[in-house]
Amino acid sequence: MSSQAFRVSQLLRPAEGGNRYELLSPTAMPRAAGFLWNRRMMIQVTCRGYAVAQFMQPEPAKYAHAPNLEAKTFMQPEQGYYAHHPGRFVYVKDEDTGDVFSAPYEPVRACADRFVFSAGKSDLAWTVEHQGIRVELVMSLSVDDVVELWSLRVTNVSGRARRLSVYPYFPIGYMSWMNQSAEFRADLGGIVASSVAPYQKVADYFKQKDFKDKTYFLCERAPDAWEAAQEAFEGEGGLHAPSALQAETLAGGDARYETPAATVQYRVALADGASEDYRFLFGPALDDGEIAAMRAKYLSEEAFARTRADYADYVAQGAGCVTIDTPDEALNNFVNHWLPRQVYYHGDVNRLTTDPQTRNYLQDNMGMTFVRPATARAAFLHALSQQEETGAMPDGILLAEGAELKYINQVPHTDHCVWLPVCLKAYLDETADWALLRESVTAGDGSSLTVAQRIGRAMDWLLKERDLRGLSFIAQGDWCDPMNMVGYKGKGVSGWLTVAAAYALNLWADMCAQLGDTEDETRYRGGARELNDAANHYLWDGRWFARGITDDGVVFGVKEDREGRLWLNPQAWSILSGAASDVQRISMLAEIEQQLHTPFGVQMFAPPYSKMRDDVGRVTQKHPGAAENGAVYNHAAAFYIYSLYTVAESERAWHLLRQMIPGPDEDDYLQRGQLPIFIPNYYRGAWREYPRTAGRSSQLFNTGTVSWVYRCVVEGLCGLAGDEAGLRIAPQLPRDWPGMRVVRQFRGATFDVTIRRTGGQSVEVHCDGALLAEPRVTAIEAGRSYRLEVSVP
Amino acid sequence: MSSQAFRVSQLLRPAEGGNRYELLSPTAMPRAAGFLWNRRMMIQVTCRGYAVAQFMQPEPAKYAHAPNLEAKTFMQPEQGYYAHHPGRFVYVKDEDTGDVFSAPYEPVRACADRFVFSAGKSDLAWTVEHQGIRVELVMSLSVDDVVELWSLRVTNVSGRARRLSVYPYFPIGYMSWMNQSAEFRADLGGIVASSVAPYQKVADYFKQKDFKDKTYFLCERAPDAWEAAQEAFEGEGGLHAPSALQAETLAGGDARYETPAATVQYRVALADGASEDYRFLFGPALDDGEIAAMRAKYLSEEAFARTRADYADYVAQGAGCVTIDTPDEALNNFVNHWLPRQVYYHGDVNRLTTDPQTRNYLQDNMGMTFVRPATARAAFLHALSQQEETGAMPDGILLAEGAELKYINQVPHTDHCVWLPVCLKAYLDETADWALLRESVTAGDGSSLTVAQRIGRAMDWLLKERDLRGLSFIAQGDWCDPMNMVGYKGKGVSGWLTVAAAYALNLWADMCAQLGDTEDETRYRGGARELNDAANHYLWDGRWFARGITDDGVVFGVKEDREGRLWLNPQAWSILSGAASDVQRISMLAEIEQQLHTPFGVQMFAPPYSKMRDDVGRVTQKHPGAAENGAVYNHAAAFYIYSLYTVAESERAWHLLRQMIPGPDEDDYLQRGQLPIFIPNYYRGAWREYPRTAGRSSQLFNTGTVSWVYRCVVEGLCGLAGDEAGLRIAPQLPRDWPGMRVVRQFRGATFDVTIRRTGGQSVEVHCDGALLAEPRVTAIEAGRSYRLEVSVP
Repeated sequence: MSSQAFRVSQLLRPAEGGNRYELLSPTAMPRAAGFLWNRRMMIQVTCRGYAVAQFMQPEPAKYAHAPNLEAKTFMQPEQGYYAHHPGRFVYVKDEDTGDVFSAPYEPVRACADRFVFSAGKSDLAWTVEHQGIRVELVMSLSVDDVVELWSLRVTNVSGRARRLSVYPYFPIGYMSWMNQSAEFRADLGGIVASSVAPYQKVADYFKQKDFKDKTYFLCERAPDAWEAAQEAFEGEGGLHAPSALQAETLAGGDARYETPAATVQYRVALADGASEDYRFLFGPALDDGEIAAMRAKYLSEEAFARTRADYADYVAQGAGCVTIDTPDEALNNFVNHWLPRQVYYHGDVNRLTTDPQTRNYLQDNMGMTFVRPATARAAFLHALSQQEETGAMPDGILLAEGAELKYINQVPHTDHCVWLPVCLKAYLDETADWALLRESVTAGDGSSLTVAQRIGRAMDWLLKERDLRGLSFIAQGDWCDPMNMVGYKGKGVSGWLTVAAAYALNLWADMCAQLGDTEDETRYRGGARELNDAANHYLWDGRWFARGITDDGVVFGVKEDREGRLWLNPQAWSILSGAASDVQRISMLAEIEQQLHTPFGVQMFAPPYSKMRDDVGRVTQKHPGAAENGAVYNHAAAFYIYSLYTVAESERAWHLLRQMIPGPDEDDYLQRGQLPIFIPNYYRGAWREYPRTAGRSSQLFNTGTVSWVYRCVVEGLCGLAGDEAGLRIAPQLPRDWPGMRVVRQFRGATFDVTIRRTGGQSVEVHCDGALLAEPRVTAIEAGRSYRLEVSVP
Repeated sequence: MSSQAFRVSQLLRPAEGGNRYELLSPTAMPRAAGFLWNRRMMIQVTCRGYAVAQFMQPEPAKYAHAPNLEAKTFMQPEQGYYAHHPGRFVYVKDEDTGDVFSAPYEPVRACADRFVFSAGKSDLAWTVEHQGIRVELVMSLSVDDVVELWSLRVTNVSGRARRLSVYPYFPIGYMSWMNQSAEFRADLGGIVASSVAPYQKVADYFKQKDFKDKTYFLCERAPDAWEAAQEAFEGEGGLHAPSALQAETLAGGDARYETPAATVQYRVALADGASEDYRFLFGPALDDGEIAAMRAKYLSEEAFARTRADYADYVAQGAGCVTIDTPDEALNNFVNHWLPRQVYYHGDVNRLTTDPQTRNYLQDNMGMTFVRPATARAAFLHALSQQEETGAMPDGILLAEGAELKYINQVPHTDHCVWLPVCLKAYLDETADWALLRESVTAGDGSSLTVAQRIGRAMDWLLKERDLRGLSFIAQGDWCDPMNMVGYKGKGVSGWLTVAAAYALNLWADMCAQLGDTEDETRYRGGARELNDAANHYLWDGRWFARGITDDGVVFGVKEDREGRLWLNPQAWSILSGAASDVQRISMLAEIEQQLHTPFGVQMFAPPYSKMRDDVGRVTQKHPGAAENGAVYNHAAAFYIYSLYTVAESERAWHLLRQMIPGPDEDDYLQRGQLPIFIPNYYRGAWREYPRTAGRSSQLFNTGTVSWVYRCVVEGLCGLAGDEAGLRIAPQLPRDWPGMRVVRQFRGATFDVTIRRTGGQSVEVHCDGALLAEPRVTAIEAGRSYRLEVSVP
């Protein structure tokens, strides 16, 4: 049924049936990167070889560092790279000509005859050919340890014998001002850098003394020479032409309170067609014993093969619940291979933080509903166990013993309760696990309440935290973290939160009804109505809903505003909450299309702020078009897409959903600069103000977006959402698709769904050949396969 | 009298009568640097063009940044440089050949035909010649503003006409993850980068909103082209061969949430012998108005000349009180030109911190006694105004409104009271300003006490903070900051502090006697005796004094210790305190010579610790030979030298004093890697363990060392210390000097002193031709000149 073949590109392409994605240039999209993770670490490596890796001890830490003392902070968008940025490189020198190149591309930046960066789901690989020498690099992880497994093959494809020196160069960077050193350790078989994590207070000594302050680079084959001091290696030549490579052999130097690097040299003579294989481990350790153990466990051909297979199995557990076959091959590829992987990453390791924001934790686990519902279930219970006595949810959910609320979690936000019914809705639709609501949860204050009681309290808290007009207080932020000065004096309200709370209350009222609690149903639905009414009364601006009202009573996000005039979230959630009438919706959608649409998706608001507006806050100080200041902030876009699917705005929803994914046009890839293997938290907006940079990817793969996009695909595009008794079928195909196929895993059964556009009046479903009375399969038997033939108008 | 001429060197030399120091290679001593400062900023620039600059707002801040988000921290020793480190550079392209080089040396690292880095007292200058083009760069500061004044002259010395492009390249670095941008501003005449200092909490907005978050690079002459985005400038070429230089003109690009850089291009045709002059300003600003004002104030030939003259006048105020003419020209040069400048830097701007450590603040102002005694006086009063009710001195002295104790000042140390009489002694000897002791000082608790009363309380506190043995508690450190676990449980004691307190008490007893307070004199002298006795009873280890006793009762710094066996400080101060008998001193000095002496000075202790000793603490975790872990830590060495002068160990004192200064042998310069224009806080020790790195300079010019070295020169080597009634004359010439001359400013008079070794029995002094009864000039008249002829044995 694949009518649109992949566009032919010299730049990038899927490979191995979509299991990999290849980029054929190191310069066209220099920040393009792949990422791997396991339960204790993550690593993002660019096509050019720069790497950002961190591991949990239990807070995020690094084993390869910048060349200076870097701030400890969260991951930054559009990470900048520079010559001495951490990375993993291999220099190759022709012993006869002295010619040097490096793989993947940095630091020498030689023009390769062939370049392939191949991002796999469970490994990253490069093939680089330069003047008859092929270098193949593969990096993968283990499931549970903090170690990078690197294999290197060097092949002579030049048609003549060659004499080479091969130098893996793994810079370790500035480890510590207290103590850093490195040396070759023949006993351990590699370079070991040692440091003491800097501190000044004695209490920190006890916190840090078991830190993995050593970084090892272990070689399966003993090298011919080595150098452990970065400066000695680089010399006056510079990283593009290190002085140490001019000598016959590396000098065997050590680093003594000098910046360490791991470089070794293999001198090799290769007949035509011959190749040599090398394997290396790179990672952090507490002591020599750990390093020796890692070597024993991982550093052999057999262990590499086994570890890679195990790790591939781990990643494969994030397979998702749908496989689609649509006319859009690039969409199929992304949805079948990469989107569930990203959903799984979020849900399985919680972004590798010890205190995820509550809203992120809940939404990430909403995504996990489609991958491994048991994890989502446990997460909801864990989150509720940290509910406060007031019914409020804390700003972050602590996952590790001794963890603390950090960074943005020290700023009070008012939206966290909203996500309980919103995320639970997806879980219940997928699993019909209504027993969850009767589970008892004991909180830190010792109180034991059922899930239903706790959500009730959370809803009561939302109803309470309103002003006299019935609008929801924003405090120092809602979903929009940096909207921190609308209500910091205690009066300002959030238009979005008002309708979001209404949506949450309506969802909860539905669930109360399902539980048979009609009193609560009535009460919460009444609360939702109040909220919607208040929104309409105070915030409807004639063509759209305003974003809020400041501490000083100024309504903002309105037509008079020169900047921050129209915000996406209040519109999207007024559709979900029922605040918006059909007439209102029509005008809202038209304004959004006119004011917020860009070639790279829909902006979170427009125009972006060009300077501080101190009754709105920090969001207005971010760079126009970056992050929350008017970017195509995909999380907000996903809410909007979801809301469009709920009102059958299929074409609009599809248009924006497709824009989430880079491509398929080459110009689009180049502008976004990202491979279509994940959705970033934003693409640059400010499309009218700064067209040069609009569309550029943040390259951040941590985003609440993906659970919603997956939900949009499953429930919206495919129209295969569950309800309390079965599976409803209501596909929302793009206008120009003749049909699509979906294989849907649902409550233990497999649904093989063929959808065809037949031009009829309504959706008709044949299940295993028999026409269903309504487009809904009930009494589903786990283990069974169902064949559905679906006709859509 | 200069018998030893300067050794001829191809590497480095003084110039302009010692007012400048020149380095003739950019590669021999790559970290060699000069520094300038004013009341609001400081800048250290290496010979190769890398720069570290910070200004006060009021905490230290930067206007040129690393390429990543750097940690905010104190200055680090042996600062590492790397391609994208902040710096100030000029690329020059030959328009006909395309050949490119850069001045000073980075980033191109082309081999120059001539290279001179010339560190002046009030400017830094470079002359670089490459293939017939001479580039002259000069940087200076203003007295009170935060702005760098750069002049650039490009001269054609090739003997033929040349067409060039000249590109100043001032990288600005990663300013902020919230907001950073840059563009050429024709209205302001340069590139302006804008940012928002990152924060998350609303309270920080109010703290930061007046930060100078803009960085400007202003051009007196309008450039032909420009580029404001670092990445666009560098391109695939790399910093050594930026892609942007390949085009005829820079592209005129801006930076939009991209890392900014200031690059402009001047296209110029130069006849043989012709030159072009350019002037630039570089610095931080709050807004456009400030930038325009800086341009108006500083950016012209006339303003440059005036500002340089004013700044030179400012620096010249740090002239010191002696000018020496000895057989050691390099010593003369250092003592007459550079040492008082460094003393003045410390005393005038207090290391540009808002909370100097109390001991640093007092000692730095002890140095200021010899430069501008009124400043020292005010500082002593200011410090005492922060004395605690208990008599204790706080860990840091707050200098700015809203300043807080930071970093190491949050760790409790027990030595701060010691420095009051120690530093006051120098001040009183220099000024005889005994009225100071009767000044009233009101503290934070509202109490008004005289200086004498406050010092008395401080001495009482020292006497109180002792254990049952009479030894001084160390808490979490004494002078040795990172010796933080000897006494953190409340029991451990410091051997050094015990004798240091004895010395302080003896000095104070002397002062009490001078004040006629014999009761206090007796009491404090008794206290000193008790301390000395306790030290001898519990800490004398047979050949030297131990360093202390841990919380668990373990004496350390003793002959049984494999590491940290012999410490310098307890020996030096036992000499000062009188704890050490002559016999003890002889054995101590012999052991020090054997165990601690190195070619680069005397180590603070030996052997360095190779791993954590958790009853001693953090000092043992520093890298062996770096900083307090067994470096030639010059501050400790200076104490020792001072103590040697007090017991007429002239030869030993001289030997170590001379080792403070790099050179004069070329090998020594190369190993230390530092110009002889300041004393660093340490030279690497661990001379036996790590000879490759021993001697290497930390390059940090913040150090308590210099006030003591100046005092050693004035009072020890020259032997020209004051007392309550006059000037005593007791030179301690090195054995092989036939004599020396000194011009000494003292109490408003000028003493022109000629010292000759005559082989007599004692020091004989002729004053204006008349033999003095004793070597002491009394009844000194301010404004008068005295001619002293001094004969020494």
